[in-house]
Amino acid sequence: AMDGVPPPTSPTALSAYVAVSQLLGLTLLATTGAWLGRYRGGVAWHSPLQFNAHPLCMVLGMVFLQGDALLVYRVFRHEAKRSTKALHALLHGLALLIALVGIIAVFESHRTKGIPDMYSLHSWCGMATFVLYLLQWFLGCGFFLFPGASFSLRGWYKPQHIFFGITLFILSITSCLLGITEMLLFNISDSYSHFVPEGILANTLGVLLVAFGLVVGYVLTREEWKRPPLAEEMALSMDFKTLTEGESPGG
Amino acid sequence: AMDGVPPPTSPTALSAYVAVSQLLGLTLLATTGAWLGRYRGGVAWHSPLQFNAHPLCMVLGMVFLQGDALLVYRVFRHEAKRSTKALHALLHGLALLIALVGIIAVFESHRTKGIPDMYSLHSWCGMATFVLYLLQWFLGCGFFLFPGASFSLRGWYKPQHIFFGITLFILSITSCLLGITEMLLFNISDSYSHFVPEGILANTLGVLLVAFGLVVGYVLTREEWKRPPLAEEMALSMDFKTLTEGESPGG
Repeated sequence: AMDGVPPPTSPTALSAYVAVSQLLGLTLLATTGAWLGRYRGGVAWHSPLQFNAHPLCMVLGMVFLQGDALLVYRVFRHEAKRSTKALHALLHGLALLIALVGIIAVFESHRTKGIPDMYSLHSWCGMATFVLYLLQWFLGCGFFLFPGASFSLRGWYKPQHIFFGITLFILSITSCLLGITEMLLFNISDSYSHFVPEGILANTLGVLLVAFGLVVGYVLTREEWKRPPLAEEMALSMDFKTLTEGESPGG
Repeated sequence: AMDGVPPPTSPTALSAYVAVSQLLGLTLLATTGAWLGRYRGGVAWHSPLQFNAHPLCMVLGMVFLQGDALLVYRVFRHEAKRSTKALHALLHGLALLIALVGIIAVFESHRTKGIPDMYSLHSWCGMATFVLYLLQWFLGCGFFLFPGASFSLRGWYKPQHIFFGITLFILSITSCLLGITEMLLFNISDSYSHFVPEGILANTLGVLLVAFGLVVGYVLTREEWKRPPLAEEMALSMDFKTLTEGESPGG
């Protein structure tokens, strides 16, 4: 077996993990909705409830859609690479738009209520994650979607793109957990320690966010579920290795 | 090039990243110490300051030492595998002991002050991480350190051990960020939004924790910095692949 040829696939297990991830993703959204609807008065834009659009948009955009954008290379591992790439970029673009709406919601809500912006660890982590996610999206489009980047440049950038992509996904989930903790200590600081239902529900949302990240991360990092490289990529990849490492072709 | 043979090393870059990780790790400890010493009255065991042993022990054990335990396979990549394994287990064991002291500190402090335990998202994430970390340590010793586990069993467990090891390291850092947020909102909820120095310092500690995780994660996931497999591992690994995949040897 030559470099880069993955072992045979186990598509049933992969499908099962992907199904669990999607069930978890929908449960995330339902739990966020239940928290906001049942305990926080619901969501509305031009109202004191505008803040509540923030957690909903961030969980939908920065977690569920971002996670699904990472999964497309596993779910559509035997489809044409060009369409899979386009879907990957599109889902990330949609995630960015929804996250932007969520960020506008919190800034407008702060302005209305006279609350200062960007002082908390949640805001620092969340804003850094969003800005770097936007940057990663532009870099990804520049390197992989538009023509122009040479094969060797793409080959150099690809592992960086993957590492920072997974890092930003983890940071998004971490920022959500920080936001949940802040929101509980702002709203129910006196009753939180008495195990009130709102506290249990919001903690459960945190645990579900971690579980979603775990399942997506597991699917992404299994060697045997990685996308089989195209024949021309393998040939080029070996040429590239030969060029950069000074090995004789075929080792 | 056959399966599993990594490309030639770039030890200078690896050393630079490891050096940065250690500088960040020491800065983490200094920043935690500065926060507790300057703004929280310092650390002492049989006193109202007992709680403060908790953040110090968790940052030292669950972040700095756990991170260094993960790095030993990169730092000592050309040393004997048996001694590297022993050091890996030893550092994780030390991390577990120090974390246990940190957990005892918070439970005793809660009992003294009459504060309920285990109600917050921080406590849920942190306790789950500690218990799973302890389990992972026992499993790691059972599979890799003591004789008895067959080669194929070790080969099956190794990628799981690596995935869950990195996951537990990330969850440890996430739990620290949640703890920082809780501690700030318990102690300086009124002044936090006015960008007081304690808030900025603790937020910075959060950013440093993320930076430490990023550098360690980057070093761990670079293909070219992975430990070169031993000759007998390669032979066995190919036999194992042949057995499980039904390929002819040498592909």
